Amino acid sequence: MKQQAFQDCYPEELSHCYGCGKNNNDGHQLKSFWQHIDNNDLLTSTTIARYTPADIFTAIPGFVYGGMSASLIDCHGTGSASAMAYLTQGREMGSLPALRFVTGALNVNFLAPTPQGVELELIGRFSEVKERKIIVDITLSANDVICSKGQVIAVLMPASMSPDKV
Amino acid sequence: MKQQAFQDCYPEELSHCYGCGKNNNDGHQLKSFWQHIDNNDLLTSTTIARYTPADIFTAIPGFVYGGMSASLIDCHGTGSASAMAYLTQGREMGSLPALRFVTGALNVNFLAPTPQGVELELIGRFSEVKERKIIVDITLSANDVICSKGQVIAVLMPASMSPDKV
Repeated sequence: MKQQAFQDCYPEELSHCYGCGKNNNDGHQLKSFWQHIDNNDLLTSTTIARYTPADIFTAIPGFVYGGMSASLIDCHGTGSASAMAYLTQGREMGSLPALRFVTGALNVNFLAPTPQGVELELIGRFSEVKERKIIVDITLSANDVICSKGQVIAVLMPASMSPDKV
Repeated sequence: MKQQAFQDCYPEELSHCYGCGKNNNDGHQLKSFWQHIDNNDLLTSTTIARYTPADIFTAIPGFVYGGMSASLIDCHGTGSASAMAYLTQGREMGSLPALRFVTGALNVNFLAPTPQGVELELIGRFSEVKERKIIVDITLSANDVICSKGQVIAVLMPASMSPDKV
């Protein structure tokens, strides 16, 4: 069965993110999936997302601008955190109450220029998993070369950010 | 005399950045300026930029998405680094050879949700200034509340990223 993207399991009211929300028609609509689930050690499971930025997202001509890499890492991180939270709690992805994570901190190291016109691949790994805080380490690669490494410290969305109906 | 934005002093061939390039009509065109120059201690000078994100750049409805904050911090950081490099070398901003900086590392701590529909203010301070590496610490505020703090480790653009004619 085809796996549903993590972000497509977010509640409708929480699916407007410019980076990954299915209800944001202007945004990137990044979609993250499990690459591998290790049932013997859930925390060694890995996540994957692929995305080809449009040509307007230039840094220096020929290269993707850093804000795009940061955005993709950010949304892959919070999506992966949500999926891991459901996995460790043995709950179906998307079931209510929603386990929606937001970014507490985002760190990106740019290791090599990211070429334009190439599908980028993001792989997520988990270095810390707590009920309300999950740390995701992410590589962003182009043509099998790691262009940047990021870390997302994701925290369970505070009630203060929640739209009324959720 | 009205101060010219740092980014508007970049060479034409290096002005296509989605975040701040004047030649990228689809981008944010962030513009950074000196807020204060301390001629007795150049490194205590500060920079400023203001920007109101369009409504499409949502995280959760009502709040700006983290990738936007990261992008603004990134471009204000590299712009500030360029301006500081010219300042410490006693050169006119934009004079050739260009002192164009790119991001080596970008760290953002999200302290409070960033409200939409509000002009954001970025203030840059310098914690390290070397010829080829400049560290810029940046606050991003809305309504005088700091929503995020970022650090940009900016490095002089490597020749490998340079378009042929520059």
